[in-house]
Amino acid sequence: MEAYFFGQRKAVPSGFAEWLAPEVSAAVSIDMHRGHLDDSPECPCPAPRAREIIEPINEFHRECRRLGVPVIHVKTVLRATGVDDTGGYPSAWRLTFPVTVGPIPNAARHGLEGTRWTELMTEVKPGDEIVDGKKRLSIFYPTDLDFLLRNMRRRTVVLTGGFTDCCVLNAAFDAANRDYRVLVCRDLVRGFSTDMEDAALRIVSLHLGLVVDSADLLGAWAGQRPTSR
Amino acid sequence: MEAYFFGQRKAVPSGFAEWLAPEVSAAVSIDMHRGHLDDSPECPCPAPRAREIIEPINEFHRECRRLGVPVIHVKTVLRATGVDDTGGYPSAWRLTFPVTVGPIPNAARHGLEGTRWTELMTEVKPGDEIVDGKKRLSIFYPTDLDFLLRNMRRRTVVLTGGFTDCCVLNAAFDAANRDYRVLVCRDLVRGFSTDMEDAALRIVSLHLGLVVDSADLLGAWAGQRPTSR
Amino acid sequence: MEAYFFGQRKAVPSGFAEWLAPEVSAAVSIDMHRGHLDDSPECPCPAPRAREIIEPINEFHRECRRLGVPVIHVKTVLRATGVDDTGGYPSAWRLTFPVTVGPIPNAARHGLEGTRWTELMTEVKPGDEIVDGKKRLSIFYPTDLDFLLRNMRRRTVVLTGGFTDCCVLNAAFDAANRDYRVLVCRDLVRGFSTDMEDAALRIVSLHLGLVVDSADLLGAWAGQRPTSR
Amino acid sequence: MEAYFFGQRKAVPSGFAEWLAPEVSAAVSIDMHRGHLDDSPECPCPAPRAREIIEPINEFHRECRRLGVPVIHVKTVLRATGVDDTGGYPSAWRLTFPVTVGPIPNAARHGLEGTRWTELMTEVKPGDEIVDGKKRLSIFYPTDLDFLLRNMRRRTVVLTGGFTDCCVLNAAFDAANRDYRVLVCRDLVRGFSTDMEDAALRIVSLHLGLVVDSADLLGAWAGQRPTSR
Repeated sequence: MEAYFFGQRKAVPSGFAEWLAPEVSAAVSIDMHRGHLDDSPECPCPAPRAREIIEPINEFHRECRRLGVPVIHVKTVLRATGVDDTGGYPSAWRLTFPVTVGPIPNAARHGLEGTRWTELMTEVKPGDEIVDGKKRLSIFYPTDLDFLLRNMRRRTVVLTGGFTDCCVLNAAFDAANRDYRVLVCRDLVRGFSTDMEDAALRIVSLHLGLVVDSADLLGAWAGQRPTSR
Repeated sequence: MEAYFFGQRKAVPSGFAEWLAPEVSAAVSIDMHRGHLDDSPECPCPAPRAREIIEPINEFHRECRRLGVPVIHVKTVLRATGVDDTGGYPSAWRLTFPVTVGPIPNAARHGLEGTRWTELMTEVKPGDEIVDGKKRLSIFYPTDLDFLLRNMRRRTVVLTGGFTDCCVLNAAFDAANRDYRVLVCRDLVRGFSTDMEDAALRIVSLHLGLVVDSADLLGAWAGQRPTSR
Repeated sequence: MEAYFFGQRKAVPSGFAEWLAPEVSAAVSIDMHRGHLDDSPECPCPAPRAREIIEPINEFHRECRRLGVPVIHVKTVLRATGVDDTGGYPSAWRLTFPVTVGPIPNAARHGLEGTRWTELMTEVKPGDEIVDGKKRLSIFYPTDLDFLLRNMRRRTVVLTGGFTDCCVLNAAFDAANRDYRVLVCRDLVRGFSTDMEDAALRIVSLHLGLVVDSADLLGAWAGQRPTSR
Repeated sequence: MEAYFFGQRKAVPSGFAEWLAPEVSAAVSIDMHRGHLDDSPECPCPAPRAREIIEPINEFHRECRRLGVPVIHVKTVLRATGVDDTGGYPSAWRLTFPVTVGPIPNAARHGLEGTRWTELMTEVKPGDEIVDGKKRLSIFYPTDLDFLLRNMRRRTVVLTGGFTDCCVLNAAFDAANRDYRVLVCRDLVRGFSTDMEDAALRIVSLHLGLVVDSADLLGAWAGQRPTSR
């Protein structure tokens, strides 16, 4: 098994057994919903680079399910009254992001319960689990993901989705702090730009966990556990 | 008041009043202890680039105290038995970091209670507060920092210390997720390398808060509030 | 204003202003759903004593809304797969409670998403907020109630619902620990038995907050703030 | 093995194996410090009924250590500036408790770092662990106890100390909510009065875990695992 350490592909050294054990792993997909991925001017928080990974994530999830690795979809849902964000303490990104990228016309609708902006655009299958309480950038606070992972007896999280340099990186920090073993599939995450993606993955590889290609991980898992075929 | 947005110095637009209000702000200095800063081969987790900001942080803290902005020092302290880390779930960085930087001979001693590696190398003055329960990268989990900030009625945190691309960036994520307003003083943080520092500050400025020069912030604070002189 | 201290009605002394301020208060109703209240043998976690407070809580909520005090309904919802409880770590009450009360035939259905056992039996009106991530006894962990209360700028919680000696008491502990000011309306909570209700309210009054009659509280609130009539 | 269910001694039914497994258990002693136990008028938060369990808890801990069950001492320590409590949001008990018991002259000194009121009066031995960040009634929030228990791979907590009807009961709620298995040794806890102790233990036995005699538990443990003698 090889991984990317500060941008360089190298063999994963010994000591990472818990990172590569499918029986304690969960695939965690972050915010692959219409509010980021819709290709229209109304999209309230556009992450256009992530549109190209919808189908690759679907394919990865199919293999996960086949190998018995549970799939968890985390998505932003804000109460319809707006109290969780624009009507409470507005998220920092609402003020900072437009300074660099310009105004985001429909941002106020981002994640609002009851709108189409909370629809997952990746496949959800029976047996998958949903965490739909993401309110800010973290997938852990103030959600019940930690509670769920404990109840599932999962020790390792495999992160996919978006933004590499925002919610994915945040998830890697949060999971590592809670002593989950972290992998990020570099082919299944997208961020603000290729530069920022590369920087975020370097940060992950230095301090937080393994940056891998999903095909390599699937191969490692399959080598360890007979498939159900 | 100007700040750095994706590396570019620009005027801070309206809407950031809570970010710049000294009466709800706290200066939070991260892990400026001997375990990162000692200039000897025994240093268990070397952050040599941060040695040059010890005195600049001291100077910043003096101005903070003069302006009535409380100073909080956060530092890593692990139980002497090792149960918090090497004897429990070893921190991910213990495995990942050496793959890129090579072996760290004394890493097992990092942060151990009762050793000199937990001594702060920045000045601590009466009225400062200490958070000494940092166990991983986060300054919030599993510490009482959030509890402390609430009791101090602080809404805004000004981050200094190290690593820019690790614990400081993690702190910016955690604070933003808890709806604290975040500033990072770019002259008072150091990271793995200038490239990683620059990338981390870009990430902060896009998604999390304001990247500022400490002198600009002190000027903005002083303009808003008469000093005690 | 009077309250009940260790079972005795006495004047509330000075120092409790924050407890009695409607502008920072929220009414928090706990688990008034069909899974506790349904009058049928299939009821998965019967709390028959609480049936009689459905309409009194509705009346209290009407007055709250009229006075501008927001209403929050907290309810148990467990993922349909069962992973949150019977399929993960089964809740302790599933083992302990039947030793005293005998078998609970339909307990495995308690709180399951998509069943009628999660339907609120108290009125929900526009502007009310829902917290539907209660998984165990606490209304705070692992839910987003603390996040919600912060965003609503609420400092004081007025607790109603059930069980007085279980989830309500737990809520009083949790809220007090997080420095929310706690009131429990003794006429709007019900528990295991009158003895246990009385004991739980004594515990609240000794250590956690004010035990009041809802009419007294509404009177105190109305005296402080002109109604919208 | 027998336990007390709603005050009645009965055989523990099947299903409680994880509760009685010494290899995943930790003994957690709550606030057995001079600030509660000192027999002088300056005692800042008197719990006189708990003085008689100092030596019995010591004896229990000796047996725990002999059987390989780790001992964790949790105690209140508030920052010396007072910011954690009287100088921040004063704890609710400071206002409510005196209404029933009368003024507590030295209460402002309770738990202050650097005073003798934080000294443990039970024995601490090498290998024991200390959690000294208790700030309110909970032993979990805002402390690192959950982090510690995870790193120790403990699933079951055996609670002793004081107050039965306050911090011990709160600990039982918190631990149960986090899916730790809870036991309370009825001979090793003391509360406000015998009535309140009895009520709190009934609440534990209904909803939260096992109420046991420590001798019975030690016997059950010893029967399961050869001692090191």
